[in-house]
Amino acid sequence: MIRVGIVGGTGYTGAELLRLLARHPRVTLSAITSRGEAGLAVADLFPHLRGRVDLAFTEPDPGRLGECDLVFFATPNGTAMKMAPALLDRGVKLIDLAADFRLKDPKVWEHWYDMPHACPELLAEAVYGLPEIHREAIRSARLIANPGCYPTAVTLGFLPLLEQGLVDPDWLVADVKSGVSGAGRKASVGMLMAEVGESFKAYGVGGHRHQPEIAQNLASVLGTDLRLTFVPHLLPMIRGIEATLYARLGEPGYDLQDLYRTRYHDEPFVDVMPAGACPDTRSVRGSNYCRIAVTEPLGQGIAVVQSVIDNLVKGAAGQAIQNMNLMFAFEETLALEDLALLP
Amino acid sequence: MIRVGIVGGTGYTGAELLRLLARHPRVTLSAITSRGEAGLAVADLFPHLRGRVDLAFTEPDPGRLGECDLVFFATPNGTAMKMAPALLDRGVKLIDLAADFRLKDPKVWEHWYDMPHACPELLAEAVYGLPEIHREAIRSARLIANPGCYPTAVTLGFLPLLEQGLVDPDWLVADVKSGVSGAGRKASVGMLMAEVGESFKAYGVGGHRHQPEIAQNLASVLGTDLRLTFVPHLLPMIRGIEATLYARLGEPGYDLQDLYRTRYHDEPFVDVMPAGACPDTRSVRGSNYCRIAVTEPLGQGIAVVQSVIDNLVKGAAGQAIQNMNLMFAFEETLALEDLALLP
Amino acid sequence: MIRVGIVGGTGYTGAELLRLLARHPRVTLSAITSRGEAGLAVADLFPHLRGRVDLAFTEPDPGRLGECDLVFFATPNGTAMKMAPALLDRGVKLIDLAADFRLKDPKVWEHWYDMPHACPELLAEAVYGLPEIHREAIRSARLIANPGCYPTAVTLGFLPLLEQGLVDPDWLVADVKSGVSGAGRKASVGMLMAEVGESFKAYGVGGHRHQPEIAQNLASVLGTDLRLTFVPHLLPMIRGIEATLYARLGEPGYDLQDLYRTRYHDEPFVDVMPAGACPDTRSVRGSNYCRIAVTEPLGQGIAVVQSVIDNLVKGAAGQAIQNMNLMFAFEETLALEDLALLP
Amino acid sequence: MIRVGIVGGTGYTGAELLRLLARHPRVTLSAITSRGEAGLAVADLFPHLRGRVDLAFTEPDPGRLGECDLVFFATPNGTAMKMAPALLDRGVKLIDLAADFRLKDPKVWEHWYDMPHACPELLAEAVYGLPEIHREAIRSARLIANPGCYPTAVTLGFLPLLEQGLVDPDWLVADVKSGVSGAGRKASVGMLMAEVGESFKAYGVGGHRHQPEIAQNLASVLGTDLRLTFVPHLLPMIRGIEATLYARLGEPGYDLQDLYRTRYHDEPFVDVMPAGACPDTRSVRGSNYCRIAVTEPLGQGIAVVQSVIDNLVKGAAGQAIQNMNLMFAFEETLALEDLALLP
Repeated sequence: MIRVGIVGGTGYTGAELLRLLARHPRVTLSAITSRGEAGLAVADLFPHLRGRVDLAFTEPDPGRLGECDLVFFATPNGTAMKMAPALLDRGVKLIDLAADFRLKDPKVWEHWYDMPHACPELLAEAVYGLPEIHREAIRSARLIANPGCYPTAVTLGFLPLLEQGLVDPDWLVADVKSGVSGAGRKASVGMLMAEVGESFKAYGVGGHRHQPEIAQNLASVLGTDLRLTFVPHLLPMIRGIEATLYARLGEPGYDLQDLYRTRYHDEPFVDVMPAGACPDTRSVRGSNYCRIAVTEPLGQGIAVVQSVIDNLVKGAAGQAIQNMNLMFAFEETLALEDLALLP
Repeated sequence: MIRVGIVGGTGYTGAELLRLLARHPRVTLSAITSRGEAGLAVADLFPHLRGRVDLAFTEPDPGRLGECDLVFFATPNGTAMKMAPALLDRGVKLIDLAADFRLKDPKVWEHWYDMPHACPELLAEAVYGLPEIHREAIRSARLIANPGCYPTAVTLGFLPLLEQGLVDPDWLVADVKSGVSGAGRKASVGMLMAEVGESFKAYGVGGHRHQPEIAQNLASVLGTDLRLTFVPHLLPMIRGIEATLYARLGEPGYDLQDLYRTRYHDEPFVDVMPAGACPDTRSVRGSNYCRIAVTEPLGQGIAVVQSVIDNLVKGAAGQAIQNMNLMFAFEETLALEDLALLP
Repeated sequence: MIRVGIVGGTGYTGAELLRLLARHPRVTLSAITSRGEAGLAVADLFPHLRGRVDLAFTEPDPGRLGECDLVFFATPNGTAMKMAPALLDRGVKLIDLAADFRLKDPKVWEHWYDMPHACPELLAEAVYGLPEIHREAIRSARLIANPGCYPTAVTLGFLPLLEQGLVDPDWLVADVKSGVSGAGRKASVGMLMAEVGESFKAYGVGGHRHQPEIAQNLASVLGTDLRLTFVPHLLPMIRGIEATLYARLGEPGYDLQDLYRTRYHDEPFVDVMPAGACPDTRSVRGSNYCRIAVTEPLGQGIAVVQSVIDNLVKGAAGQAIQNMNLMFAFEETLALEDLALLP
Repeated sequence: MIRVGIVGGTGYTGAELLRLLARHPRVTLSAITSRGEAGLAVADLFPHLRGRVDLAFTEPDPGRLGECDLVFFATPNGTAMKMAPALLDRGVKLIDLAADFRLKDPKVWEHWYDMPHACPELLAEAVYGLPEIHREAIRSARLIANPGCYPTAVTLGFLPLLEQGLVDPDWLVADVKSGVSGAGRKASVGMLMAEVGESFKAYGVGGHRHQPEIAQNLASVLGTDLRLTFVPHLLPMIRGIEATLYARLGEPGYDLQDLYRTRYHDEPFVDVMPAGACPDTRSVRGSNYCRIAVTEPLGQGIAVVQSVIDNLVKGAAGQAIQNMNLMFAFEETLALEDLALLP
């Protein structure tokens, strides 16, 4: 058994960590913190955890967190980087579900997140927690930058094409759609059901923080720069991301289906669908799977990839637990065996 | 007052024609037909029309339809082409809301719709009813091919770019999303709320019937062939289409905002949003507007256009009435003044 | 033409007043106020009004409002009562869409709304704006208390039974369900789509402010006290209220269908459905109708009434305009002719 | 390990059995049948089961089913009663998730289900599978009538009040709301998302098949007849039932909270919420819990009970597995430990 703490447990990512960890046979939850809700029983905020999680929120206490083997940060951007150095010094391993350690270049980080980085010296050490690319590094990491939800779906979707150098790197398009839980659990007019229900729109068309993260992932695979057009959209539903990706194929006749199937054959959480399939987000709702389909419509030289995940699971808490399992040499799929809830 | 008939009034397009025509001051509804529901009062099927539409469905009767000044076909594909020649001979004007007269080449039509065309000799005469391109031809037409819902949103979105020859015609991408009313009002498992609610997916990725229609529209504007990748998606909501369009700009520095504003300045139903805006589908729900925004994200040489319509109004019944208004020299906006229902 | 002002125009009720008044042929909108958004163009907040409403929000200015013939208050509870006396003194007629003038007894008001009443002397004069009960008084009123959304649906549903004294007044149950727009347009965690989408619950079971309002309505019809159990619920949708009402019938064999049809025969906005019907909320979406059905299931001596309205139209802005039409001797249905948007 | 078969596996109840049984450590799935889909891989119909369920649908074969230890019927009403006698003769235990064995009186069954009963001699033996009432009988049963979804929610809600004889049995009202998955997975216009999304209505107001089932449950607890008014409604969401129950209290001052807490203290799947709580359906989504709250609003002598379940889990497949666990002396909660998926 390892002792695990969660900093910032009142959001959807925190709640999802609790849902999954409550059934993890090798984990003892020893602390969950929230400045705003300290003293409140977790199950009073999240009734689905009644009878299963009997912790109460506490103030974030470095002493108590320092006794954990692992601490998850389910906090807003900019929080983990302030607490990370002290916890690492105490020998605690860290998984940050926010963006603090995702971008390797602190200047790029500061440009997009609009604040100075508190510990740029850790950026090189931090391992980007996408097991399908960095599994071995994750096993021995102290500090994991858990990927963003959009970057998980888009990177896994483009990965085989870029690894093989099959597409024009100057013409990558990611048209991505997310359920509203991606916006988090905080009061706002813009995310009221009366505002976003029964409607659909793009947002952040001029530039979104996940664009440089995805571009960094793809460029490191490709070994060169590229141009990615990334347009996120907001779906009138709660969970799920679908990414439709477009790339210009360099040469005709490549067996895309075989490429994808081979690349992901041994991945426990990436499922390549049959040719012609259209994965729906509900097929991964509540589960840690990414389902992918690839095709070249009408033989026009454009590869179209569809990639779906649950933004709170493979896009956040599930992937974090997958990383934890790797870091502590547990079975990689432990506590992640839930099948999707369909319908 | 003109006498108007509707063939096939039990679907959503028929219901929407009724909703709008019920308040049209120059129209008398004289017949609405349905083989399956003949004898039933319209208001028994559509309770929102109670007290406002007192017709009953009748069998399609050429005699009675022949007395109309105008007949709308809100029928499945393949119906209007069988009845059109006889009605035209009697001097009735026709607007087909299905696909029978949309494609100019009968071979292309037969390929995508999988049946022989019953009156290919009418294809040349039929006017494609998109007033923003063919307003003058519509005024004097006998036979209108009312555009498809996706083609309306996509064509209006790409139009200014293609008219000016600003983009690479081999690299047009249309990632388009529709509410479920686009699938029509017919029994199916795939459109049950338990199947499509709270979920999202692409469909028809390998090829969709609206692709050749859009390609035809764009090619006729451009004067040359092009390659369009068109991927439709299904939204967990009822009304609305959003098209996000991607095109490679030939030269940098063009004022896209000014281009769009100028092109649509005098159009009563196309609203170009301010730079940076993201139109949502609810802003046109129930109305005949198309709202468009254009931008070039991160200065990467890719134009991104967003275009939203209500698929049942500007994408079907509303546009049909706009065409009717033009054909009969009524005010173009008559009975189409409804503002969108928001929230 | 009359000059109309709206105080508090940034909520859903204000937006709905604008949508309906923009097409009212006898109304000139002369002012719309908002402290928080003064200076902002209305159409920048509500894009569905682009091109149709060109006002900007202004600070509430008694001088400018004093020049209006009528002012609507679409404000939080407690605002109208502070401004009403001065405006009435200037000869302005007032319709308050909040609760300030709905309860006749200031002590009851203060108990439920938790603040002292600023002008209890006006409570006797204020006319409760439910035309189906108070049409004549409304015609000559200076000050209208526009009914709450739940009270409109429940009162119209129970009305014929209580007028005829057919039911046990100690055993009235109203199980009522509302879409989320009833909670208004203000930042909150509880009304996020991720909180209220795809879920359903009761709320305020211990007591809700609309209970005394409904009880007052029913008691005044009945001429005696009664006991009403009122339980509101929150629906995962935007617009619409459905009330299912239960009452113990005093004597068997009464023709309930005939009772309701007769009572509402001349009402322009109350539609009694055929026996056995189940009105759905979409059949009134965007329209000013209340649709009602009544039955006695299994002959068990319990009358069950279903009553549906659009909470923002007949439950708020539409009813307010109906009242305005009566106060200014316009056609009662003017600008309220919209049919429901279905699907 | 026991060998389990499922007859009729293409509906939502069948899919949910598969989702839950796939992770049951004591069960081997040996057959799943469907006449319509024989030959199709289960995972081709239900992609969320890809990689986890590798069975294909087969024709219902008595020989193969006869080798099972237990067979679940997830079939339409009227199917199980035809196959049950032969399978029981072979020593197979049966759990019918349809209605064939729920009503004790074959005449009542025939009245409501409109067909003769094929094996009325089994009705006395069949045990009604609500563990909270019949746990001991279930342990030794050969044939279980798995309760309906509405009857589960309503019976558990009323149970403590009736066991104690606290309420007027002539005045029981159940106003119940269900998500659309309750209508099953079959083609229909009425359950299209465009028909039932963003709308709400009652249905079956004149009489619903679950009324006699609930009445039978309550009468057997009470030991006398009663009058239950039961009105079901259709929610614009997929999973979940909420029942709001109304009953006239015989004597004031009873501690309802204590009554419920005591009654359900040892029940693993019934959670009595704190006084004043309003359980939402999402708090049980995907889980086998029933959450209940009870109150007496405004001290008016009417008890109001709220009861929520997931109609596909505690209302169908989960409860069936709970029954199976009891019948085979497994831990009662085995494979039912999933926490609800929230948000």
